[in-house]
Amino acid sequence: MSKFVNIAGAARVLAVASLVCSVAQAQTPQPPSFAKATDDGQWTMPAKDAAGTRYSSLDEINAQNVKNLKVAFAFSTGFDRGEEAAPLVVGDTMYIVTPYPNTLFALDLKQGGALKWRYDPLPSAASQGVACCDVVNRGAVFADGKLIYNTLDDYTIAVAADTGKEVWRTKMGEINKGETMTMAPLLAKDKVLVGDSGGELGVRGWAAALDVKTGKILWRAYNTGPDSDVLIGPDFKPFYASDKGKDLGVSTWPPDMWQHGGGTVWGWSSYDPDLNLIYYGVSNPGPWNSSIRPGDNKWTAGIFARDADTGQARWFYQYSPHDQFDYDGVNEEILVDLTWKGQPRKVLVHPDRNGYVYVIDRTNGEVLSAEPLQYITSSTGVDLKTGRLAYVAAKQPKTGETVRDICPAPPGAKDWQPSAFSHKTGLLYIPHNNLCFDVEELDVGYIEGTPYVGENVHMKAGPGGNRGEYAAWDILKGKKIWSVKERFPVWSGTLVTAGDVAFYGTMEGLFKAINANTGELLWQFKTGSGIIGQPTTYRGPDGKQYVAILSGVGGWSGAIVAGGLDKRDGTAALGFVNAMKDLPDVTTKGGTLYVFALP
Amino acid sequence: MSKFVNIAGAARVLAVASLVCSVAQAQTPQPPSFAKATDDGQWTMPAKDAAGTRYSSLDEINAQNVKNLKVAFAFSTGFDRGEEAAPLVVGDTMYIVTPYPNTLFALDLKQGGALKWRYDPLPSAASQGVACCDVVNRGAVFADGKLIYNTLDDYTIAVAADTGKEVWRTKMGEINKGETMTMAPLLAKDKVLVGDSGGELGVRGWAAALDVKTGKILWRAYNTGPDSDVLIGPDFKPFYASDKGKDLGVSTWPPDMWQHGGGTVWGWSSYDPDLNLIYYGVSNPGPWNSSIRPGDNKWTAGIFARDADTGQARWFYQYSPHDQFDYDGVNEEILVDLTWKGQPRKVLVHPDRNGYVYVIDRTNGEVLSAEPLQYITSSTGVDLKTGRLAYVAAKQPKTGETVRDICPAPPGAKDWQPSAFSHKTGLLYIPHNNLCFDVEELDVGYIEGTPYVGENVHMKAGPGGNRGEYAAWDILKGKKIWSVKERFPVWSGTLVTAGDVAFYGTMEGLFKAINANTGELLWQFKTGSGIIGQPTTYRGPDGKQYVAILSGVGGWSGAIVAGGLDKRDGTAALGFVNAMKDLPDVTTKGGTLYVFALP
Repeated sequence: MSKFVNIAGAARVLAVASLVCSVAQAQTPQPPSFAKATDDGQWTMPAKDAAGTRYSSLDEINAQNVKNLKVAFAFSTGFDRGEEAAPLVVGDTMYIVTPYPNTLFALDLKQGGALKWRYDPLPSAASQGVACCDVVNRGAVFADGKLIYNTLDDYTIAVAADTGKEVWRTKMGEINKGETMTMAPLLAKDKVLVGDSGGELGVRGWAAALDVKTGKILWRAYNTGPDSDVLIGPDFKPFYASDKGKDLGVSTWPPDMWQHGGGTVWGWSSYDPDLNLIYYGVSNPGPWNSSIRPGDNKWTAGIFARDADTGQARWFYQYSPHDQFDYDGVNEEILVDLTWKGQPRKVLVHPDRNGYVYVIDRTNGEVLSAEPLQYITSSTGVDLKTGRLAYVAAKQPKTGETVRDICPAPPGAKDWQPSAFSHKTGLLYIPHNNLCFDVEELDVGYIEGTPYVGENVHMKAGPGGNRGEYAAWDILKGKKIWSVKERFPVWSGTLVTAGDVAFYGTMEGLFKAINANTGELLWQFKTGSGIIGQPTTYRGPDGKQYVAILSGVGGWSGAIVAGGLDKRDGTAALGFVNAMKDLPDVTTKGGTLYVFALP
Repeated sequence: MSKFVNIAGAARVLAVASLVCSVAQAQTPQPPSFAKATDDGQWTMPAKDAAGTRYSSLDEINAQNVKNLKVAFAFSTGFDRGEEAAPLVVGDTMYIVTPYPNTLFALDLKQGGALKWRYDPLPSAASQGVACCDVVNRGAVFADGKLIYNTLDDYTIAVAADTGKEVWRTKMGEINKGETMTMAPLLAKDKVLVGDSGGELGVRGWAAALDVKTGKILWRAYNTGPDSDVLIGPDFKPFYASDKGKDLGVSTWPPDMWQHGGGTVWGWSSYDPDLNLIYYGVSNPGPWNSSIRPGDNKWTAGIFARDADTGQARWFYQYSPHDQFDYDGVNEEILVDLTWKGQPRKVLVHPDRNGYVYVIDRTNGEVLSAEPLQYITSSTGVDLKTGRLAYVAAKQPKTGETVRDICPAPPGAKDWQPSAFSHKTGLLYIPHNNLCFDVEELDVGYIEGTPYVGENVHMKAGPGGNRGEYAAWDILKGKKIWSVKERFPVWSGTLVTAGDVAFYGTMEGLFKAINANTGELLWQFKTGSGIIGQPTTYRGPDGKQYVAILSGVGGWSGAIVAGGLDKRDGTAALGFVNAMKDLPDVTTKGGTLYVFALP
């Protein structure tokens, strides 16, 4: 087997995006047993379960009848920035978190979605000024009778699910340093894992665990700096040589640059209760200008496995050593158990921004495969022996020269928009991007709390001109089974059900239902604004199945609309505006929840 | 017949709000022939026709099947102030106007409501500061291939319906004087009638006609001041003695106070092409403190009939001489032809804020009847001989003393929310209020461009506690046939169809379909925000009937939510906040269009 996945291979995969169905293979991967609990019809965490599957066993809505889906009710959030949160359902109540000012709404499902209460945390208005890419929030998690979520101004807050009263509030970061919080917490037993955002402002990234009952910080692990800060100790057993050594979080940086080297934790994380390990990705190193930070820049653009109780690192793998393209590492890790070359393996599947879909042994960090999801020019593949990404020298950004046609662009072949895994089809459903970019590096110095990027970026559509795609991915074969091309990046999350329906939204505002086996469009509904939220499904008080999605364009990709940016400045929104100049022609901002059901 | 409609009689009418049907009476009033043209399935002006009926002959959606109505598509306006405009449909395109910044959107109905173009007039931001009660806009009118509408900063603008390009723009007023524009223009042949808002800022009100082709101002009539300014000449033949005399617009005011005496034109108007007369109401005199402006305060709180071509006044009638309660006179005038005491009469029906539903001979201004719509304590009735409203002395506001329990409150038994008249049932459908208030007069001086009110107002629910009601009114009998009580003022317009369905929205956000014969609730849908818009219906490109409504709470009644006002200040929004303290508990802001159809 070749060490490298080459570009020709990638192109071939793209070319054969036909409608082949892969159901009922002998070796269909399965979510681990801890994710297979009987579905109670609730949706209590953004990813549905600790394995991050976003799979529902509800099947009242299926590929045959989804064409009859209708709006049951709507609810305006009253805010008009990007709505990225997953609507949760606990009992007969739905909970939604808005972008700044991070209001938490409780809607009474027994009363047709009527407002039950609202909780307004009143975050500092100044937090908006240090949020890199719109003022989004990715939602709450339910635990111990409380909704727990983060505010843009760096508080983790617990609110009583029944009354809407604040139970505890813990200050986690400092906006004056450029830190914000946008991620949804991960629940791991009696703890929640949270982390900071601000990789574009030279913050020092960290992840922390808080006690669900009290909000007390139980541990905090930094992602740069000495091993003691990173919680690297005797239990740390990375699989690859380049992750071994003392204080790599210091020595893989020019002197002192680790102190404002990014490596934040703002994306998705998963938890394996059997191994008692949490998995979370670490974002890009700062600044984006990579010439001024030679070295691997540990522990950025990779993934940590940590003991949930102590925070001690178990292993780390770096997707993009010395990340030159803001490829980050924060995308979802979906935990599945499968037979790999005849052996049972506990793996995590991770579609990375650098363009590869990784299958990693989640017990030890070994990369089993890394196959291209999209057109890639920045690297030629991943060496499975060393774990190293093979960069293409000609695509390295330079100062004083524009390097062109780097693919993927900084938002990656896939950004935060979380995938779903079907227990039934065994396929991974990946909403993603098809973007390339041109870049010129610029000098940049660090000033606390201000942008720390050092690049002029102009993004553009990748080959074919479609800026987005929704793909079904065969984990074992490492290739797309089919895909649906979309005009704009598919910036929404997705959901797949036992009814063999997958749901996602487009930035034009269409909420779509797709046949999970074939990719056929079964139904669509035009919501009020572009969709970048996460669909969820639940069983309502009347016993019927419902599907919920927040509409409301924004986020990094939709900042041109939500932030009213001038399309004449292609470098705005870190260069994303250049690729989205036509978005204002087709959608308008405005946050509204839509809930659907069969008549 | 008694000269006065007494309170006991009004109470009786309220008590018998039973579900009696009045269809198929021998003397059912009919809209005049010029409003009866074959329905082409379009909706080209807010009131549907020049007679102001808001009646559609489409009957695919009827009382039997309306329960199956579903959302066809939605569109977020991207703005979060009160959405009062009527969605128009011309050909295969829908047009909606937003509150400030008064964007005009064209949606392609052949493409499922996709955005076709948007026109942004970019009104002065300062106009928001002089708008009394939210920054609403009541919509556009289609004429000569153009959408014509007003901006908050006092421009009347024509935009090409096909391209979205501005055709002409005429400056009509001056925000530094407190003038804004919120009304929808009235189309009268080749002219549009527009007027100013700002009765709470001591502006001098006017109405003007512009050439549809060029935007040239053809005439402008002031509502205070000398006859020459008011366009009162030899053709002026008011019916009642108190409206006769020279320069009453000067002599019925203390010296010079007419110069900033209000009398604006921001509500509804109608046009009778056979008589070539336009009818429009004139708002309250300024300031609200009436003690400092003794006299009838002509020509405020009444209605003008004017020659459409010359603007010369034909007659005037004053609903509320020396208006003490902001009773205004701007509500709709619905033109119907009927047999009154054996004689055919061309009348206009006008439910006024002062609480009475007027039937007026539209040829000469004679009041045929004025019957109470709601509980009234401020007056005892209308003298049909003199036309005078009989005020109750004990309810006259005073300085240094709070006068309590005045009913109706300033927003009236009914405010701007326009009624509909069914050609089929012969009934008038009136969305309205049930509000009373306490008031104390305060000293006030005139300063250009600033509030000129001089009262502390606290509004509250009227008898029964329901702040709103939706009533079916028998014009000939002068009484309610049935009514539906609502928790909040019914601040939306309404629509009635040949399918015997009436539509309206509630401030909780429910869009309701009512049996036009019985008042029975047939269907409701919970939109995202409170509804204060005007429903319209049309035949889509696919031949199906659709119903459209803008959801988006705000306006005077919803300012507590749209403006984020503090409920602890009951006098905020001119005292309306005191009556709406619980509105933020049930709804959120956000403008979204919802379009419905049968599956």
